[in-house]
Amino acid sequence: MSPARVMAADLAAHVGRQVTIAGWLHRKRELKSVTFLVIRDRTGLAQVVLAGPGEAAKAAGYPEESVLAVTGLVTASEQAPGGVEVTRPELAGLGEATEPPPFDLYRPAVGAALPTVLDHAPTSLRHPVLRAGLEISAASVAGFRAALGARGFTEIHTPKIVESATESGASVFGIDYFGRPAYLAQSPQFYKQAMVGVFERVFEVGPVFRAEPHDTARHLAQYTSLDAEFGFIEDHRDVMAVLTGVFAQMVATVAERARPAAELLGVKLPDVPAQIPDVHFTRAQELIAAGAGWDPRGEPDLSPADERWLCEWALREHGSEFVYVTGFPLAAKPFYTHPDPARAGYTNGFDLLFRGLELVTGGQRLHRYGDYLAALAALGLDPAPYASYLRVFKHGMPPHGGFAIGLERWTARLTGVANIRQVTAFPRDSHRLSP
Amino acid sequence: MSPARVMAADLAAHVGRQVTIAGWLHRKRELKSVTFLVIRDRTGLAQVVLAGPGEAAKAAGYPEESVLAVTGLVTASEQAPGGVEVTRPELAGLGEATEPPPFDLYRPAVGAALPTVLDHAPTSLRHPVLRAGLEISAASVAGFRAALGARGFTEIHTPKIVESATESGASVFGIDYFGRPAYLAQSPQFYKQAMVGVFERVFEVGPVFRAEPHDTARHLAQYTSLDAEFGFIEDHRDVMAVLTGVFAQMVATVAERARPAAELLGVKLPDVPAQIPDVHFTRAQELIAAGAGWDPRGEPDLSPADERWLCEWALREHGSEFVYVTGFPLAAKPFYTHPDPARAGYTNGFDLLFRGLELVTGGQRLHRYGDYLAALAALGLDPAPYASYLRVFKHGMPPHGGFAIGLERWTARLTGVANIRQVTAFPRDSHRLSP
Repeated sequence: MSPARVMAADLAAHVGRQVTIAGWLHRKRELKSVTFLVIRDRTGLAQVVLAGPGEAAKAAGYPEESVLAVTGLVTASEQAPGGVEVTRPELAGLGEATEPPPFDLYRPAVGAALPTVLDHAPTSLRHPVLRAGLEISAASVAGFRAALGARGFTEIHTPKIVESATESGASVFGIDYFGRPAYLAQSPQFYKQAMVGVFERVFEVGPVFRAEPHDTARHLAQYTSLDAEFGFIEDHRDVMAVLTGVFAQMVATVAERARPAAELLGVKLPDVPAQIPDVHFTRAQELIAAGAGWDPRGEPDLSPADERWLCEWALREHGSEFVYVTGFPLAAKPFYTHPDPARAGYTNGFDLLFRGLELVTGGQRLHRYGDYLAALAALGLDPAPYASYLRVFKHGMPPHGGFAIGLERWTARLTGVANIRQVTAFPRDSHRLSP
Repeated sequence: MSPARVMAADLAAHVGRQVTIAGWLHRKRELKSVTFLVIRDRTGLAQVVLAGPGEAAKAAGYPEESVLAVTGLVTASEQAPGGVEVTRPELAGLGEATEPPPFDLYRPAVGAALPTVLDHAPTSLRHPVLRAGLEISAASVAGFRAALGARGFTEIHTPKIVESATESGASVFGIDYFGRPAYLAQSPQFYKQAMVGVFERVFEVGPVFRAEPHDTARHLAQYTSLDAEFGFIEDHRDVMAVLTGVFAQMVATVAERARPAAELLGVKLPDVPAQIPDVHFTRAQELIAAGAGWDPRGEPDLSPADERWLCEWALREHGSEFVYVTGFPLAAKPFYTHPDPARAGYTNGFDLLFRGLELVTGGQRLHRYGDYLAALAALGLDPAPYASYLRVFKHGMPPHGGFAIGLERWTARLTGVANIRQVTAFPRDSHRLSP
């Protein structure tokens, strides 16, 4: 590569000069007297014009997606995208494609069914629409980290191979660990709680694993969990305040770093209110009973229809696309959830709903050893498999809480795709283990 | 918690005022007429004085590591650490310890053998020395990301469950994937290469898994890999230039964000030269043959002793604690390594050595489909298991390369610990699956 490589997005600043651009042959259009090449690099697209006798032949050996270096004259052109094109080019092949892509990558919409897209993911993801989802995902993660870093949180990395399947026995992957049985971690829950004892405030971005046997549009066998946990809280409201600030920065970072991607997908970025509306679980059920066509009262958890209705309600009544549901019943939340001290049977656990879907689950956790033993006993659970988790609570833990955001689910809701797999680079589910 | 919580590090700004601090009871010293409490929070330590009749009794119910809120008067005191202490305190228990920690956390050195430390990791890691290693680790990762973000790299998240154990068949973990055999990924190598086709420049911070049956001081069954890969390079020297910049920023970020931790551990942060010295593999062997007490020529790879000698040589001759070894023989590098076009039998693969140890491996990769088939054939390998990996090379890939830094190994070298487990929160090895 010539060190003088100019990026596609910068081309307009070089009119009248000889430059080298490089990238993928996004599209080749052969007309009678002229051939147009569109070169795609990480900053955008650039048009190259082969005109005159014999010129078209220069591109003959390069199928679409070949990687080319193109040296030529930057010429202003009203018809060209971006107002400039490269004329009188010399082409050099940097990495020739040996067969055409599985579907046309230059068409505005993805012109293949999802299974085809996923089967060919390494190539499919080059399509600007699919790539844009992953850019928004990357910007979201950067915002998540920036928000927590600014609040004194420390990043941690915890084990993904664990001894016992304690958090939710049903759907774990078993692994042969040097001849012993072990499991893939379903969440960093226990580790992030323990690390509150070390750093007070911690976060982790990492894979979690769920052996979900059912293929749905919103579940994956591996997804990226954005986890945070912190101590010295009053109750779950302190957790919600941090979470609200985190989403504000995630959205701001998408706007800052991935605006072209958001525009390409027609994403309307949500406002994150300084105070997201919140509604207690029982009040939410009353609202639904009074306003929707069904009565959920008596149910221990929200149904998908309940979640959708509550989002419509929050938008109508509060102008917010986000809404917290607080005070879930004990039965709806894991055993480590702190009960509501003012209301028997309910907890300091919450969900955050966004555009019709539960996006985040969080809450205050138990922090006293005796309370854990009592909570397990109340559920009729043997504390033995939890011994290694519980031990840290003998050594002094502050009131604490946290949350976990499913990255792919967030990106899917934000971009409005029908299936979470459309914003996951190489999804894993019960049918898909490759590529 | 009172909203007016003051952090230990800020106490000196509050002399003469009534404040609340909160944290762990790091140490309790009961003398005849006075009891000193040291409270540890995420910013440091604060001394609390209980003096006068009956005062000591206030702390009687709190073993060390209990979490307390302490409200009292901030008083200047020459003898106190930081020049201030909290006097006339009222204590409130936020999370009482029910038993003492497994070893004294307040002593300057970690006073327990490594197995004890690791068995009790959730509590052990509170020791300022162990915590400091993880702070340095977190700052290093932040520097890694900042350096690559500034260079136009996009963050990716790739599958940790893979279909075939292609990269190095010997040491993978098997997993039951919905009744089918699958494996834990040993690296994101193939995925990050594919994603060069999408974003040109990518990085990933994530866990990788090696079923190493041997317990050594420098291997783990799970570690955090800092991976980068990018296209449109001339050769491996472009990769080395980026890697040098990455280390410069990692060290700078440790200096900026984790200086107290580095000072506590007595870490001398290395200078990262703008141009790290580099030496070709064959020249390195000649230097060793001429200067060390042994002759490595003819060996296909460097031995640990070779690495140590080369680091001493680089420090002596070039004043650098880092040294690149370039041009490794084909036999020493994986099949996807690009050969040196100017020297048969050698590659554009390199290692970066630091303080006696190989820390990073990287290089230019093959980027043409036909070259991959030829490389596999030359090794007598069946291309079938690689089909899903190789397919992307039919669709145009630029010359590219990258590197992978082992986070724990870097932190271990930087801090000078004898065993990598001392800077890993919850290490996994053939004997250790918990906590």
